[in-house]
Amino acid sequence: MWEFNFVFRQNAQDTFIVTRRHHHTARQNAYGAFKHAHIYVQLKDRYTRIIKDGSHESRECYVIGSHQFLHKNRVKRGAPECTDILQGRNESVMSLDEISIKPHDALAAYLAADMEAVNVLIRERMASEHAPRIPEVTAHLVEAGGKRLRPMLTLAAAHLCGYDGPYHVHLAATVEFIHTATLLHDDVVDESGQRRGRPTANLLWDNKSSVLVGDYLFSRSFQLMVETGSLRVLDILANASATIAEGEVLQLTASQDLATTEAIYLQVVRGKTAALFSAATEVGGVIAGEDDAQVQALFDYGDALGIAFQIVDDLLDVSGDPNAIGKNVGDDFREKKLTLPLIKAIAKADAEERAFWVRTIEKGRQENGDLEHAIALLHKHGALEDTRLEALAWADKAVAAIDQLPEHPVRDMLREIAGYVVARIN
Amino acid sequence: MWEFNFVFRQNAQDTFIVTRRHHHTARQNAYGAFKHAHIYVQLKDRYTRIIKDGSHESRECYVIGSHQFLHKNRVKRGAPECTDILQGRNESVMSLDEISIKPHDALAAYLAADMEAVNVLIRERMASEHAPRIPEVTAHLVEAGGKRLRPMLTLAAAHLCGYDGPYHVHLAATVEFIHTATLLHDDVVDESGQRRGRPTANLLWDNKSSVLVGDYLFSRSFQLMVETGSLRVLDILANASATIAEGEVLQLTASQDLATTEAIYLQVVRGKTAALFSAATEVGGVIAGEDDAQVQALFDYGDALGIAFQIVDDLLDVSGDPNAIGKNVGDDFREKKLTLPLIKAIAKADAEERAFWVRTIEKGRQENGDLEHAIALLHKHGALEDTRLEALAWADKAVAAIDQLPEHPVRDMLREIAGYVVARIN
Repeated sequence: MWEFNFVFRQNAQDTFIVTRRHHHTARQNAYGAFKHAHIYVQLKDRYTRIIKDGSHESRECYVIGSHQFLHKNRVKRGAPECTDILQGRNESVMSLDEISIKPHDALAAYLAADMEAVNVLIRERMASEHAPRIPEVTAHLVEAGGKRLRPMLTLAAAHLCGYDGPYHVHLAATVEFIHTATLLHDDVVDESGQRRGRPTANLLWDNKSSVLVGDYLFSRSFQLMVETGSLRVLDILANASATIAEGEVLQLTASQDLATTEAIYLQVVRGKTAALFSAATEVGGVIAGEDDAQVQALFDYGDALGIAFQIVDDLLDVSGDPNAIGKNVGDDFREKKLTLPLIKAIAKADAEERAFWVRTIEKGRQENGDLEHAIALLHKHGALEDTRLEALAWADKAVAAIDQLPEHPVRDMLREIAGYVVARIN
Repeated sequence: MWEFNFVFRQNAQDTFIVTRRHHHTARQNAYGAFKHAHIYVQLKDRYTRIIKDGSHESRECYVIGSHQFLHKNRVKRGAPECTDILQGRNESVMSLDEISIKPHDALAAYLAADMEAVNVLIRERMASEHAPRIPEVTAHLVEAGGKRLRPMLTLAAAHLCGYDGPYHVHLAATVEFIHTATLLHDDVVDESGQRRGRPTANLLWDNKSSVLVGDYLFSRSFQLMVETGSLRVLDILANASATIAEGEVLQLTASQDLATTEAIYLQVVRGKTAALFSAATEVGGVIAGEDDAQVQALFDYGDALGIAFQIVDDLLDVSGDPNAIGKNVGDDFREKKLTLPLIKAIAKADAEERAFWVRTIEKGRQENGDLEHAIALLHKHGALEDTRLEALAWADKAVAAIDQLPEHPVRDMLREIAGYVVARIN
């Protein structure tokens, strides 16, 4: 689908941004770009040029790979047009109106040069002289097309604090490695078969490879952060790692436990999601030598953003459109996970409802129709609406935190990202 | 069995050492001590006193728990004897002559105070405010009675270099946490059911807990080393962690691969065993501020000791006495692992023998009698003897390395440990 390969974005600086997925598909994308955005794209060796065909003489165009970020070029109007690629195929592509404009794409465009450096570093460090299985497994996940939101948060925080490198790149790669390592281990723990629409590594190789390659990436992340020479950064990331692992264990033991409180839920969410978000933004500020108040604001932003992100994910699991969320509705229910909507509904359950939850969650004996009944109970007690408001409140907290930082284009983008995270439920 | 609870050792300083396993069994041990070593042991509250009943007025006696190291007391001759415990039971205990004298017990006695601090720190840091599953799983392994050789190596190296604390204790706990984390992950990878004679955590709980608690301990180890404030130490341990994980992956992919060379085997062994040994001794020297040549000697000692240790383990798997090695003969063969004896025999195999190895290892189709035939082939090609000589050569290298360090009682103990590691095959 072409829509995955190209996203157009006109940002505040009137810059046109074209993000695309694989340079292999640049030719097709170039045609789409021309047809729908009147942008000519020239293929030349491995490089790609973009020429805006319009009246905006001063505008610059960027090409970045939203996933691989291999290329970045700026071409002013007046560069030679390349007609040969316009003899493209008559593909079915979405119209410009339908193209989604996402704040993280804007941020990706802004940070393109740094993200390119991050990707080079990731590729370099995921290699293994002795064990080719390691880059195989890692590449499967790293190149599956995650949004790379976490490393972008680190780069963004560093930029926002006026840092000009080079260690924000190391820290961004560190954060992505920690994230990838936890995904590999999560898939073993959850016995998952799919992630990001592809078979998981534990399915393609085995659990052993997922466990050990995860360990390798965690060790590599550790090497990367040691290179920054900042003990404060090491301290933050060591603490985040412990919180992540503790949260994962807590989630394991809290599963099926109807006594799980909202406080325990928050602890789990901090572990599985928010701890890495907050560490990602915090170390960006620390490496830039920012003062304590600003570092705290960056931490608070990441923490609130991560919590909002996870609550939205948990809410959509029981209320989302399967096509939009990319997975089945009710996966968490089937896995007997005590997510916020359930915790809220269980707190208000009468005796009969409680018996239902005991059977379906605590004892895990689920029958046809149980998911529908569970969702009806969530509606009945306003648990979905309460959860939604809680996610919005956390997004507001993220915005309030980021607003304490000085004015900066990145600050505005981070604010937009907080809004975007809850946009699907707002 | 009393023999597991008590070991007597008279070291170079004419000190009598009594090591015992659990303070709960001190009463029985005390009786055994009196009966067979003419040592009176007095129980008083939680503490234990030992009085040598002999003519060596100036000798001091130590009580240490070889596993928990909870107690250490020195009592000079002349302290009141406690007769009530001498009215002991008429137990069957081994005679003093049969008591094994192990170099690591001597080292444990020397380092008893520090090891007590290490154990306090381990208990403190394996706790989790939020997830009680973590200390449950960890305690199962930490208290299973490993020899704690790795943390002792760190303490020993620090002592040898004249360091007087406090961070060698942090580093020793770090090393033990890394070791415990890798054991938890190894058991998942190997699908083991037993370790140190007890069911493994993945069997008692589940693979999930083993993976996640391992991650937690790895994070905790990382926090501990950050507390030392030494970037050089962090660098060494980050590199060791990467080597360990890489070695584990390499072992996974080298399994069943008849093309595995001795060089690959060495790489695997460095990863699975020697990297943590060498890091353990190296950081002990680094934290003491030792010069590069001495740190290198400490690294070389740990590296060679770890390699000797693993080669012996692999050799005993095909040539050991099942009672002495505490597991079945041929476990590695059944798991299709390419250990050094096999690699050497396969290198000399004729066509028929090669077909045998292809069937049993590469294709993994093993039948009754295959293990016996495999062992016969190892004998035929001198593979067991060559492997034995190689282990001895590595032990010699360890001794040569440690001899480069200045004279010190700990140096002598470390030299003895190198000899002890290969004693079972010598």
